[in-house]
Amino acid sequence: MKEITLGIDIGGTNTVFGAVDLDGKSYFEGRIPTPEYKSFPEFVQKIHSVLGDLIQNLNFPHKLIGIGIGAPNGNFYTGEVNLAPNLPWKGRLEVAKEFSEVFGLPTWVTNDAKAAAIGEMMFGAAKGMRNFIVITLGTGLGSGFVVNGDLIYGHDGFAGEFGHVIVHPDGRMCGCGRRGCLETYVSATGIKRTVYKLLADNLEPSKLRSVSFDQLSADMISKAAKEGDQIAIEAFEYTGKILGSKLADAVAICSPEAIILFGGLAKAGELIIDPVKKHMEENLLPIFRSKISILQSGIHGSNGAVLGAAALAWKQLGYSVKS
Amino acid sequence: MKEITLGIDIGGTNTVFGAVDLDGKSYFEGRIPTPEYKSFPEFVQKIHSVLGDLIQNLNFPHKLIGIGIGAPNGNFYTGEVNLAPNLPWKGRLEVAKEFSEVFGLPTWVTNDAKAAAIGEMMFGAAKGMRNFIVITLGTGLGSGFVVNGDLIYGHDGFAGEFGHVIVHPDGRMCGCGRRGCLETYVSATGIKRTVYKLLADNLEPSKLRSVSFDQLSADMISKAAKEGDQIAIEAFEYTGKILGSKLADAVAICSPEAIILFGGLAKAGELIIDPVKKHMEENLLPIFRSKISILQSGIHGSNGAVLGAAALAWKQLGYSVKS
Repeated sequence: MKEITLGIDIGGTNTVFGAVDLDGKSYFEGRIPTPEYKSFPEFVQKIHSVLGDLIQNLNFPHKLIGIGIGAPNGNFYTGEVNLAPNLPWKGRLEVAKEFSEVFGLPTWVTNDAKAAAIGEMMFGAAKGMRNFIVITLGTGLGSGFVVNGDLIYGHDGFAGEFGHVIVHPDGRMCGCGRRGCLETYVSATGIKRTVYKLLADNLEPSKLRSVSFDQLSADMISKAAKEGDQIAIEAFEYTGKILGSKLADAVAICSPEAIILFGGLAKAGELIIDPVKKHMEENLLPIFRSKISILQSGIHGSNGAVLGAAALAWKQLGYSVKS
Repeated sequence: MKEITLGIDIGGTNTVFGAVDLDGKSYFEGRIPTPEYKSFPEFVQKIHSVLGDLIQNLNFPHKLIGIGIGAPNGNFYTGEVNLAPNLPWKGRLEVAKEFSEVFGLPTWVTNDAKAAAIGEMMFGAAKGMRNFIVITLGTGLGSGFVVNGDLIYGHDGFAGEFGHVIVHPDGRMCGCGRRGCLETYVSATGIKRTVYKLLADNLEPSKLRSVSFDQLSADMISKAAKEGDQIAIEAFEYTGKILGSKLADAVAICSPEAIILFGGLAKAGELIIDPVKKHMEENLLPIFRSKISILQSGIHGSNGAVLGAAALAWKQLGYSVKS
C-alpha cells in the first residue's frame, strides 16, 4: 500500500494539483481555471471531483494521507488565505478547514514560496540541508528561509517577505505601496523595468527596442542576452548586483549553506547566477566568503509548485527527507 | 538539592562568572582580568579555583549541572573561539573542551549577543516568546535571532551578524574591512561618529564641542540629549532612523513578536527606542505594522552577560522557560 499526499497550487489563473509519493514521484497532474468558480466552496468541490477521477485511475494500491496547499498569502498557522489580490474570492478564506472537511484528510496551507522551499528540502536542490534560502523569481520575488531544518514562519506566519526589503528608499514604486522594494528590481517584472531604464539611459542598439513594455517578457530578455544583446546582458548584471548585495545581508543574519533560485527568471541559469554570486561575494563578511553555493532549483518539470505543496504535507506528517 | 549552572562571560578586559538557578537568580559574581593569564589553560585553571571558593560558600544543598560561556567569536557548534581580536591568546581556542575537562561538566559556548538572546528568552523581556530579535548595542552591534524558539546559528555557527548588513555601500569604514556596515552607525562607537559628523556639518552650540573623540562616550551623549542638547538629540534620531529602517528589513525576513535592545546604548531608553520604533514602522510592510514591540532588555543589574551564558547551559540541558 503506497502512501501518497496531494499537492495543490492555487494560482490567480490556474490551480494545479497532483499526487506525490515520498520519493517525490508525481503520478498525475490536474488543472482547473481558478476564476471560473463563483464561490470558494464550489471551487473546492470541483477539485474534489476532478481529483477523485484522477485518483481512481491510479493502478496500484495506495492510501491518501494528507494535503499540502500553496496559495497566495497562505498562512501556515491559521490555514487561511486573507486578502489575496489575485484570487477571485474576497475576504478571509478558511482554506485548510474547507479542504480538510471535503476530503477528510489533514490539510496544511502556506504561501507558494515557502512551499517551494519545502519542496527543495524534500525533493530538490536542498536535500539534506538544514540551513538554506529559496528565492522564487516570478512576477514578484518570494522567499523561504529554512533554519535548523524548519521554515521561518515568524510570529504570525508572515515571515519570508524578502521581496520587500528596501533597496533604495526613493526607488521604484512597489505594489505594496512603498518604494524601492527588492522585487521591483529582482523579478520578471523588475528586469523588464530595468531593460526599459537601460533603453532610456543608453544609445546602444538592441532588439528589445522594438518590443513594447506589455509584450516584453523575462524569456525574451534572457534570449536576447544569450544572443549577445548588450542591453539584455546589462539588465541581468544589474539584477544580479542588487540581488547579490541583498543576499549578503541575508547571509549575515542566517548563514545558510546555499541559496536556491527558483521560478521563471531562475531558468536563465548562469546569466543570473553568475552576477548574483559575484556581487554577493563582494559584499560578504570575510567569514562567509567562498562558502555559500548559489544553485538553480532542483525541482524539474512544470510541477514544481505541486511538488512543493505535497512536500509540505509530507513534512507536517513527520516524514523526513530521503537521501 | 538545588540545581545550578555556571555562566561565564569572557571579555577582552574582564571575565565575569556566576552561578544561576532556573529562576534566573544569581548567587554570586566573580571577576578576573582576562589579559593577565599567559596561556588559555592557565586562565581556565584560575577561573576553576576562584569559582571553587565561591561555590564552597553557597550555604544550601546544590548541584552544578552545566556551564554556559559567552565569548567573542564563540562558535556554538565547535565550542571554539577562533581569531578573537581582543583576547590575549591567539589562534583556535578549544573553549568548551578545556572548561569541560577542568570542571567535569557539560559546557556550551556561543558569542555574547547570542547568549544575551537566550538570557532574554529564559529570564528577561522575551519570556514565553518563540520569535524575537535581540540587538546588543555596545562597542559594536551584535544580534541574536530566535525563530521557532531556537537561536539561528546558521550552517556554520556564525549567523546573527546583523551589525554587518550594509547601510551605505560607500559609507563609514568598518573594522571588518568593508564600508557602511550597520555597526559603524548604530553602536556606542557609531553614535560617537555621528556626533562628530553633526558637529562638523552644523553650527549649533553643543556642550559636546568641548569633548575630544577619545573622551566622548555614549553615556555623555545620552546625558547631553536628556539636557536638551540639539546635536545629541539629533544623533539619537539619526541612529534610530538607521536602525529602524534596517530592522524593517529583518522583520520582513523573520516576522518577530518583539525586538529587544540590550547593552550600554540601550540604557538611553526612549531616546533610542522612540526613533527606532518610528522609523521601523515607517519602513514596514503594511502587514507588519503596529504589531512588533521594541523593548529594553529585561535583564537587570550588571550581570546580564553572566545570566545569558548560564541560560545557554539551562537551555541546552533541556530545561524550558519558567513563566
